[in-house]
Amino acid sequence: MSYQAPLAEYRFLLDDVLDLGGLLAASPGSTVDAETVATILEEGARFVEERLVPTNREGDREGARLTPSGVVAPSSYRGVYADFVAGGWNGLTFPSEYDGMGLPEVLGAVLQEMWQSANMSFSLCPLLTQGAVELLLRFGTPEQRALYAKPMVSGRWTGTMNLTEPQAGSDLGATRAVAEPTETPGRFRLRGQKIFITWGEHDLAENIVHMVLARTPNAPEGTRGLSLFIVPRRIPNGDGTPGEFNDVRAVSIEHKLGIHGSPTCVMSYGDRGGADAWLVGDLHQGLAAMFLMMNRARLSVGQQGVAISEVAFQAARRYARERVQGTDGGTRVTIAHHPDVRRMLWLMKSQVEAMRLMALDAFRSLDLSDRTHGEDKARHERRVALLTPIVKGWCTETAQEIVSLALQVHGGMGYVEETGVAQYLRDARILTIYEGTTGIQGLDFVGRKIFRDRGVAIGELAEDLARFFDAAPPALAGRVPSCRRLLEDLKRTVIGLLKDASREPRLAPSVASPLLMAAGTLLGAAMLVRSSGRAVALGEPLLAIPAGALLAALASAGASWAVVPWPGSCAPLVAALSAVRAGGG
Amino acid sequence: MSYQAPLAEYRFLLDDVLDLGGLLAASPGSTVDAETVATILEEGARFVEERLVPTNREGDREGARLTPSGVVAPSSYRGVYADFVAGGWNGLTFPSEYDGMGLPEVLGAVLQEMWQSANMSFSLCPLLTQGAVELLLRFGTPEQRALYAKPMVSGRWTGTMNLTEPQAGSDLGATRAVAEPTETPGRFRLRGQKIFITWGEHDLAENIVHMVLARTPNAPEGTRGLSLFIVPRRIPNGDGTPGEFNDVRAVSIEHKLGIHGSPTCVMSYGDRGGADAWLVGDLHQGLAAMFLMMNRARLSVGQQGVAISEVAFQAARRYARERVQGTDGGTRVTIAHHPDVRRMLWLMKSQVEAMRLMALDAFRSLDLSDRTHGEDKARHERRVALLTPIVKGWCTETAQEIVSLALQVHGGMGYVEETGVAQYLRDARILTIYEGTTGIQGLDFVGRKIFRDRGVAIGELAEDLARFFDAAPPALAGRVPSCRRLLEDLKRTVIGLLKDASREPRLAPSVASPLLMAAGTLLGAAMLVRSSGRAVALGEPLLAIPAGALLAALASAGASWAVVPWPGSCAPLVAALSAVRAGGG
Repeated sequence: MSYQAPLAEYRFLLDDVLDLGGLLAASPGSTVDAETVATILEEGARFVEERLVPTNREGDREGARLTPSGVVAPSSYRGVYADFVAGGWNGLTFPSEYDGMGLPEVLGAVLQEMWQSANMSFSLCPLLTQGAVELLLRFGTPEQRALYAKPMVSGRWTGTMNLTEPQAGSDLGATRAVAEPTETPGRFRLRGQKIFITWGEHDLAENIVHMVLARTPNAPEGTRGLSLFIVPRRIPNGDGTPGEFNDVRAVSIEHKLGIHGSPTCVMSYGDRGGADAWLVGDLHQGLAAMFLMMNRARLSVGQQGVAISEVAFQAARRYARERVQGTDGGTRVTIAHHPDVRRMLWLMKSQVEAMRLMALDAFRSLDLSDRTHGEDKARHERRVALLTPIVKGWCTETAQEIVSLALQVHGGMGYVEETGVAQYLRDARILTIYEGTTGIQGLDFVGRKIFRDRGVAIGELAEDLARFFDAAPPALAGRVPSCRRLLEDLKRTVIGLLKDASREPRLAPSVASPLLMAAGTLLGAAMLVRSSGRAVALGEPLLAIPAGALLAALASAGASWAVVPWPGSCAPLVAALSAVRAGGG
Repeated sequence: MSYQAPLAEYRFLLDDVLDLGGLLAASPGSTVDAETVATILEEGARFVEERLVPTNREGDREGARLTPSGVVAPSSYRGVYADFVAGGWNGLTFPSEYDGMGLPEVLGAVLQEMWQSANMSFSLCPLLTQGAVELLLRFGTPEQRALYAKPMVSGRWTGTMNLTEPQAGSDLGATRAVAEPTETPGRFRLRGQKIFITWGEHDLAENIVHMVLARTPNAPEGTRGLSLFIVPRRIPNGDGTPGEFNDVRAVSIEHKLGIHGSPTCVMSYGDRGGADAWLVGDLHQGLAAMFLMMNRARLSVGQQGVAISEVAFQAARRYARERVQGTDGGTRVTIAHHPDVRRMLWLMKSQVEAMRLMALDAFRSLDLSDRTHGEDKARHERRVALLTPIVKGWCTETAQEIVSLALQVHGGMGYVEETGVAQYLRDARILTIYEGTTGIQGLDFVGRKIFRDRGVAIGELAEDLARFFDAAPPALAGRVPSCRRLLEDLKRTVIGLLKDASREPRLAPSVASPLLMAAGTLLGAAMLVRSSGRAVALGEPLLAIPAGALLAALASAGASWAVVPWPGSCAPLVAALSAVRAGGG
C-alpha cells in the first residue's frame, strides 16, 4: 500500500491554526525557522514514503520471532531503523544538550503521525523510547541522565515500559515484581515477570533500557508501594558503551491479531538471581512517575489512531477512484461516483480532520505548558491532563470505525490480506486497549480530570469551545446550534455528576465511557468549526478542511455516544447495571 | 473457546413469541410434534457443542489449502461433516420426498444459528448448499431434481453460488462468463472465471454442484442477458452416482482476514474447452432465479451476524466472570463487577436479543408465506422481501460492534490469538460484504422494497411496530415514547423520499444506508418490546429477555444511524456528496 504524507494539511494546521511560528519564537534559544520546518516536513515525508512504507506489509507477514539467540525484528526493519537513527528523527523534540533538536512537541507529533501511518509496528519502538527518555530526563539522577540520555535520544538504545503482570493489568496495585536493595545506595536486584512488553527485546539497537515498576520489601500495599527502576539489557560501562548482559530476557512473544512486526514480549527478570536495577525518582513514587510517561504515551496512542485512520482513508479513496463498477447515467464509473461510497469517504475524512486537530492541539498545550509560568502554566497543564483521555479514547475508538469503513469501501477485496487494508484493521484494534482501555480513559476523565478539580479544567475547555462556535464561519452556521446543544448537555451532565456522584457511587463509573465519547464528539466538532473558520478567513475554498457536510457526518457518527443517560435518567441504568441478572452480568 | 447453545432462549422465542406450534399445526402432513422439536433442539445442541465447536480454532489455524490434487478443507472438518450428513442436519427444512424433514424455516434457522456460532467457516458450506437446493427445487426441471435433489438435501453433494467475476462484483451486469448451446437442448458448454466462490472446491463431499451465472451468445447486454446453469464438478451418471470430472477447477484460493477454514476459490470453467452446463429455469432469467437463492442467503448471513455475536458475547461474559482485577468495596472482584464492563455486556446482550428475534421473525414470515394463499401469501412475501435487507444489513453491522466489544472486554488478552475472541472479529468482518454489501442492502431497501410498491410493505410493518409499542409492558413504558418518535421520523422520511426522490435522483441513494440502519434500530427496539411483553405476560421476571435498560442501550447504540439527514435537511449533504472536492471524493 502506498501512502502520501498530507503535507498541505500539516502546513495549514501548523501555520494557520496552531501558530507554530509563535511557539518557535517563544522557544528559548531556538534557531529553528520556517524554512527549517519546511525542510523537516519534506525530508520526513520522503523518509517515510520511500523507506518506511515498504516495510509495513513485509513486517506484517514475517512478524517478529523468538529465536534461540533472542527476539528478532522483521528483517526489513534493520536497515530502516539504522537510517531512522542516523537521520536524527528520534530526537526531534529533545533538548540539544542531549543531541536532540529541541523542536516543539506539536511539530514532533506531526512527524510521529507520519511514522505511525507508514508502519505502526515499527514506530511503536521509537514511541516507547521517547516515553522512556521523558521519564529519564524528568526523574533520573544526573548520573543516570549522563549515562542513558544521549544514546536513547539518538535511538541507538531503545526504551520500554514494564507495568503489566499476569494478575496486574488495569489494576497495577496487584504488581508482584520485587526489587531488593543492595549495599550500593540506589542499586537494587529485581525479580519478576512482566507481560505485554512492547519491543521488550529485539535486534535493532545495541541496548534496551527497561523502565520497570516493582515493589520493594516492606513497601505499602497497592499502588502506593510501587517504585520505578531502570533495568538496562546491557549494563553501561563507565565510558557509556553497553557492557555485560543483565539478568533479563524475553521468554516468549505473543501471537497477536495485528502489529505482527512489533514484538510483544513476556519478560523475565532475575532468572539467574536478580537483574541489576537502579531506582528512578523517589522510593514508592513509581506510579506517579510512570504516569508521566503513560500520559505522554496515551497522547501518542491517540495519535496512532489518527495515523492509521489517515492511511486507511487514503487506501479507500485510492481504491474508490480506481475501481470501475456500475454506471452513472449510462457510463461505467468508478465507485467514487456512487453516493454511498462518497458518504463513507466523507465520513472518514471528516473524522480524520477532527481527530488530527484535536490531537495536535493537545501537543500544543504541552508546548505552551513548557513555555509559560505560574497560573498560565498550570492552566496549560490542566488542559493537557484533561485532553489526554479524550484524545486517547475518542481518537482510538473512532479509528476502529474508520479502518472498518476503509475495508468496506474495498468490498470483497478488502477481506483479502494481499490488498493491505485488512492489516490496518488488525493493527488498529490494539489502540483502544493498550496504554489503558477506553473504560480506563473514561474513569480517568471523570474521576481524575473532572471530579478532582471540581470541574475547573472542563469549564475552561467549555469556554474555549463556545468561542469556537461563536466564531463559526457562515457556511457552518446551520450546524452550530446542534453543537451548542451538545455543549449545554455536557455542561449540565458534569454539573449533575458533581452534585449526585457522592450519593450514588456507581453513577459516575457507569456513564464515564459514554461521557468521554460525547466529549470527544463535541471537541471534534469544535475542531472542524475552528479549522474551517481559519480556512474561510484565509479566503480558502474549504478544500483542505471541508465543512458543513463533514460536521453533519461527524455529529451523526458521534450521536450514539452523545445519547448518554444524563443524570436525570440514570437511575434505571445504574440499577440494571448493579443487579445481578441471568442474562447479562 | 467453548459455547453453549442458548436453548432456553430458543424455546421461549419459538414457543412463546413466534408460535411454532401454530406453524406446525398449519403444516400439511407434518408429523412433527412438540416432543420432536425438543429432541431436535437438544440433539442439535449436543452435536454442535461436542463435535463442531472444537473444530473452529483448529480450522482457523490450519486453514483450507490448495494442493496439487485440489482444495482440501481443514483436516478436522472431514469427520464432522460426515457426521453432519449422517445426522440428517442438512435436510431439516426440505420436503420429505427428497429425504428432508419438512420442518418450518424458523426452526431450521435456530439450528443454523447454532452451527454458525460454533464454526462459521464450516457452516458456510451447508448454508450455500441449502441455497442451491432452494434454487433447484424452484427452477430445476423434473430430471434435474431427480438427479440432484436427494444427494444435495442430504449434504452428500454440496452446492455453490457463482456470480462474481473480477470486473463484476456488485455490478453483475458486467458478467463475461459465456455458455454456448450444444446440440442437446438445455445443455451448454460454459467458459469463464469466477472469483470469491465460497467452498468452490473441497474434499468433504463426493460432488459439488455449481450454480453459475453466465451469458449466452447474442444475449441482451447487462443483467437481462444472464442465465443460470448447473455445472456439476462430477457429471452424475444415470444411476445418480457421480461420474467423470467436468471441466472446472479451483485455480487459487484467497488468503483472507478470517474464515480461514472456508476455501474462497477462484474457479476456472472450460480450461479444456468448456464445462458441461445445464440451463436452470428460463433463458435470460438467471438473475431473477439467482435472487431467490441470494435473498435466502442474505437472511442466513444476517443470522450469521446473530450467531457470531452470541458466541462472542458468551466468551466476553465468561471472561468477565473469571478475570479478577481491581476491587469493589475493598475486596478483589471479577471485572464483571465493574460498571463499564457491565455496560458493555448489557449492550451486547440487548443487541443479540434484538437481532435474533428480528431474524427469526423473518424466517417465520417465510413459513407463513408457504402456508397461506392469495392476499395473505402476498403480504407475507412482501414482508420477507422488506425484512431481508434489514436483517442482512443491520444484524451484520451490529455484529461488528458486538465482536469488537467482546474483544474489548478481554483487554490485552483479547488481542492475543490464542484467546480465540480475535477470530470472531476476523470471521465476522466478511458479513457486511458478502451477499451484497451494506450499501447494496440500503439500495435494495429503498429502491426495490420501498419505492417499487410505493411504501405498502413498509407501511404494513410500521402498523405492526405501532402495535408492539402499544402493547409494551409497564416496565418499558418510559422507553416507548422515544421508540414512537423514531417510528414517526421513519414514516415521515419515507413519505418525503417517495415525494422528492424523482426530483432529486441522488437523494435516495445518499441516505439509503443510514435509513436502512435506522429502520433496523427501530425494528430491533420493537423486537425487545415484543419479547419483553410476552415474558411479562407469562409472569417471567424478564430474565431471558431483559428490558428497560437494554432498550436504552440499544437506542443509544443505534442513535448514530437514527440521525439520518431527513429530507428537509438533506440538500446540503447531497450537494456535498455530489460536488467533486479536493479532500473526500
